Amino acid sequence: MEVAQVLHMKGGTGETSYAQNSVVQEKIISMTKPIVEEAITNFYTSNFKRNLAIADLGCSSGPNTLLVVSLLVKAVEKLCRKLGHKSPEFQVFLNDLPGNDFNAIFRTLPEFKERMRKQLGDGIGPCFVLGVPGSFYGRLFPKKSLDFVHSSSSLMWLSQVPEGLEGNKGNIYMTKTSPPSVLRAYYQQFQRDFSVFLKCRSEELVTGGRMVLTIVGRRSEDPASKECCTIWELLAAALKEMVLEGIIDEDLFDSFNIPQYKPSPSEVKNEVEKERSFTIDRLEVSEVNWNAYEREVNVPEACKDGGYNVAKFMRAVAEPLLVSHFGESIIDEVFSRYKEIVADRMAKEKTEFVNVTISMTKLD
Amino acid sequence: MEVAQVLHMKGGTGETSYAQNSVVQEKIISMTKPIVEEAITNFYTSNFKRNLAIADLGCSSGPNTLLVVSLLVKAVEKLCRKLGHKSPEFQVFLNDLPGNDFNAIFRTLPEFKERMRKQLGDGIGPCFVLGVPGSFYGRLFPKKSLDFVHSSSSLMWLSQVPEGLEGNKGNIYMTKTSPPSVLRAYYQQFQRDFSVFLKCRSEELVTGGRMVLTIVGRRSEDPASKECCTIWELLAAALKEMVLEGIIDEDLFDSFNIPQYKPSPSEVKNEVEKERSFTIDRLEVSEVNWNAYEREVNVPEACKDGGYNVAKFMRAVAEPLLVSHFGESIIDEVFSRYKEIVADRMAKEKTEFVNVTISMTKLD
Repeated sequence: MEVAQVLHMKGGTGETSYAQNSVVQEKIISMTKPIVEEAITNFYTSNFKRNLAIADLGCSSGPNTLLVVSLLVKAVEKLCRKLGHKSPEFQVFLNDLPGNDFNAIFRTLPEFKERMRKQLGDGIGPCFVLGVPGSFYGRLFPKKSLDFVHSSSSLMWLSQVPEGLEGNKGNIYMTKTSPPSVLRAYYQQFQRDFSVFLKCRSEELVTGGRMVLTIVGRRSEDPASKECCTIWELLAAALKEMVLEGIIDEDLFDSFNIPQYKPSPSEVKNEVEKERSFTIDRLEVSEVNWNAYEREVNVPEACKDGGYNVAKFMRAVAEPLLVSHFGESIIDEVFSRYKEIVADRMAKEKTEFVNVTISMTKLD
Repeated sequence: MEVAQVLHMKGGTGETSYAQNSVVQEKIISMTKPIVEEAITNFYTSNFKRNLAIADLGCSSGPNTLLVVSLLVKAVEKLCRKLGHKSPEFQVFLNDLPGNDFNAIFRTLPEFKERMRKQLGDGIGPCFVLGVPGSFYGRLFPKKSLDFVHSSSSLMWLSQVPEGLEGNKGNIYMTKTSPPSVLRAYYQQFQRDFSVFLKCRSEELVTGGRMVLTIVGRRSEDPASKECCTIWELLAAALKEMVLEGIIDEDLFDSFNIPQYKPSPSEVKNEVEKERSFTIDRLEVSEVNWNAYEREVNVPEACKDGGYNVAKFMRAVAEPLLVSHFGESIIDEVFSRYKEIVADRMAKEKTEFVNVTISMTKLD
């Protein structure tokens, strides 16, 4: 499987699209907003540039894509007003893999710009939004051309399924029962990918440029800990039921592995320090419930079933991967079973995603 | 009708898509290739930049989109080899309206890059391709951020249907029978739009930057001359037949006008001179037959019917406009009639599009 050609959040705006099922990621963006605002404000305070080049890597398509843009533009505009400066011209680069639904983003742009103008007034600098298709595990921009890089809920995706997972039969991800060679293969793939990512960005960012990354990760140093592995283990359980019933071929199941690694804060920190191009300004951990509506008031009627919410959310994320491996026909059934399994688990224990956020500055 | 929201070449890669029916535009690109190559070569000879920012405005989606990119990159690479220079990093901005099928372009990029690497070898500079959704009748890029602007078969599209066309009943475009007020309204809209275009590009281009525009236009100074109006007049004839048969509402027909102006070389030159930001290096006129396969040898069996070719070509260009005004249901019928009418005309007279190409340099 070529991850770069297969991986993308589910396109369009239909009921099972990512655009309609990305409230968890939205929460993560809101939770990490103060860190992002601090970074862009600090950058702009020490660099009153006329043009500000901002990139969001792994932007996907849906309300979150432009939420990040508006957050960044608003922070700079606020600062300009406070200091009596003229607004800069914004150039915002939205990056994702070529399979991402860029058309859907672009078609909402006129409306987005109108909304921004209404909220911020006519004085706002022009905001040029561009689409950048390609893997962030490679160069995407000319040297020293970016001022600010943001990425949320994207960098846990690896560039490929690690090699050497043959011993991982019966699983689709790391688990407590995975042999050490499997855990090692996943970790090494993360190290390779993340160091390439840092190297590329260090070439593209100007000196003093900032980068804020939020990665779905874990608190524990154990890479097979529940906090990062359970969500996939339950999907494996749904698939396994269907293997046992003869609906899914066992070999096909055994050869499926999720190209994802959820790092701990110290694993993230280690790679940044090894790469030596950045100084770390902040390193923080936060949690968000699997069910985005948990503890919310005024939950829409359609979103009151936690298991259903989580299954839909995970479907929007994982459907293209599953379709590419198993075909279209099993999808409804897998997620119907997954919903039950997830709901059962949520009733028994605390189910949360852990987010590792790192804010850093590019050194000279 | 909001032209910016409606106008786009027909997306996808299906039989009636623009991608499958853009051989005429491809011919135009090939014919004007020497002018484009000369301009980029002259620019790069006097500016050995490490990053080269190139924009193609009105890029549409299909083989022509990346044809232009490859032409420009190859010209620079050739020059670098001749002079023993290291290749620059290319940043190629592909612009079109937000309704354009950017996804289709982006999905062919990995293959395109692979092909370029095979043709030019590994020494080729990285080529970062970006999508820029928006109207070129407004700013699209930060100030002084572009080195080279190219646009082919796009600038005859106006930003809106001109106001004051009430006297144009029975027509969908300028014709010999249009009152002077209609011809004036069209011309003034062109002047407004083209001068805004030049103003925006003059802000975005660096001093010494180049711009090559090829516009479907006319040789004659008469804006209602056959060379530019017949192609639409025949479409009007097909629609009128359907009005007479009660299939299309007459008022709906009367309120439909094509947002296009095909300028003469002197009209193009006048606007450039009035705007004063550019010096004109070349101004040339060329012709291409309506039927792209005319005078070709080895024409594929499916493309031997000239009327059919032209009808398909015009459908790929005009279908979204017609659908937005008349609805989906009439489309097949309109183009079936159009095919007959066009074939009849092609048998009787020389039927050609005229292209006006202008090559210019941005002054200080």
